[in-house]
Amino acid sequence: MSSEPTGLIAKSGIELLTFGTPNGYKASILLEELKEAYGKDYTWQSVNISKNTQKEPWFTAVSPNGRIPAIVDHDRDGFSVFEGLSILGYLTRRYDPEHKFSFPVDSNEYDEAETWMAWQHGGVGPMQGQANHFIRYAKEKIPYGIQRYVGETERLYGVLDARLEGRDYIVGNKFSIADINLIGWVNVSRLSDIVLEDKFPNIAKWVDRILARPAVQKGFAIPYASPLTNAIVRDAIASSDAEKKKPYEETHKLIQNAKDQYGYKYASP
Amino acid sequence: MSSEPTGLIAKSGIELLTFGTPNGYKASILLEELKEAYGKDYTWQSVNISKNTQKEPWFTAVSPNGRIPAIVDHDRDGFSVFEGLSILGYLTRRYDPEHKFSFPVDSNEYDEAETWMAWQHGGVGPMQGQANHFIRYAKEKIPYGIQRYVGETERLYGVLDARLEGRDYIVGNKFSIADINLIGWVNVSRLSDIVLEDKFPNIAKWVDRILARPAVQKGFAIPYASPLTNAIVRDAIASSDAEKKKPYEETHKLIQNAKDQYGYKYASP
Repeated sequence: MSSEPTGLIAKSGIELLTFGTPNGYKASILLEELKEAYGKDYTWQSVNISKNTQKEPWFTAVSPNGRIPAIVDHDRDGFSVFEGLSILGYLTRRYDPEHKFSFPVDSNEYDEAETWMAWQHGGVGPMQGQANHFIRYAKEKIPYGIQRYVGETERLYGVLDARLEGRDYIVGNKFSIADINLIGWVNVSRLSDIVLEDKFPNIAKWVDRILARPAVQKGFAIPYASPLTNAIVRDAIASSDAEKKKPYEETHKLIQNAKDQYGYKYASP
Repeated sequence: MSSEPTGLIAKSGIELLTFGTPNGYKASILLEELKEAYGKDYTWQSVNISKNTQKEPWFTAVSPNGRIPAIVDHDRDGFSVFEGLSILGYLTRRYDPEHKFSFPVDSNEYDEAETWMAWQHGGVGPMQGQANHFIRYAKEKIPYGIQRYVGETERLYGVLDARLEGRDYIVGNKFSIADINLIGWVNVSRLSDIVLEDKFPNIAKWVDRILARPAVQKGFAIPYASPLTNAIVRDAIASSDAEKKKPYEETHKLIQNAKDQYGYKYASP
């Protein structure tokens, strides 16, 4: 049994407080990229959100919203940043001087990256998060909520797929924080029964491009690798083991029935 | 009958595409502040979202997510920005050289403003928006959804109230885009039965401070003043006209019953 953290542990550098969620991985992926590119090291602690460690006073002193991820910069008087979008912004403004993963503040690409990151932060994250809630976590199954949030997530994926038409990356023809901000959510789309290869081919190719990066793979293992990725779900569905397939077949049916009940029709934007 | 816009109309300066919503007002408030402070003029068009004008091709060419607000900068080759957070960021980085409503990019306050704006953009906006949906717009009344989103909105207001303890403004001891980003949502909290004066006294005082600004009042009238503000709801409830009171009393009952049914208990963060 691993014990939960009870306070900050590092004396210098960046300390990351995180967990294995789509939002958590944003921070660990960028920190791994910065480590590989610049040799910048960091410390991380796993904060088990099912144990409510993120509601403890030492944690909310750093991240008053009581959510992961959060970072503390021990080299800048313990300055702390929470919210994925801001963590990516802060770390690149301070620690990506060559703009390997970001754009100069006075460039149009800075504004474009901010726009697409805000689009993720206010759209894909919250809406796909609500879909997950109604599909997996809510104690009662509520078809209205299921089709509402799966539908909105699909609409957003349609916007992203159109954006990626003729583009390898979301902004400025290079891998950047605009991509990092999205990959964690897109990589678990199958939990909402969204099969990228079938419906969003540009996104599917973009995912392969991002996942091929060694630092992205390392970031996705901190604090642990998700057991719910698209690759894992795809393999389970393709397997000959009926027990493995079953939960995903049930999810598919649950979502399809909810859509049918409300006459859902895909439309984007 | 006013006809809907069919394309961009300005040749120079900022053109704002907006509607009378909590997100729309962010942009018009900042633009009114910039006009008052620097004499910067702008053009706006009202985009009626109930008529789906925001899904027309000329609109999605500017704002691919099909949502208001969006801006086009005709002085910078028609560069367009969507998402409230990014519009506020863009306009201040480009047109607030004296940092009257923002902070220098290399200051800690820039990071803090970004953090609290992201907190609004990914939390208060989407969650209070979902509360409004389940309370007012969903065709069936679903108590689970009502208590879930009102509860999450209250939790977030608790975080904001704590932030405003001993502070007049959200970041850096001055009025800024961090405040502008939030005021539109907080100003309609009573639609979710959240009475600031009763539960969140620091927020209530902050709202009075923000609403006292002439440019804020002007921004809240573009393209039209909301008929759903806290002041209007408060007056309706205090009136002796039973018909006026009735919808708000019913909303209160609806939310209270939903909370009771699920044993809701306020907790923040």
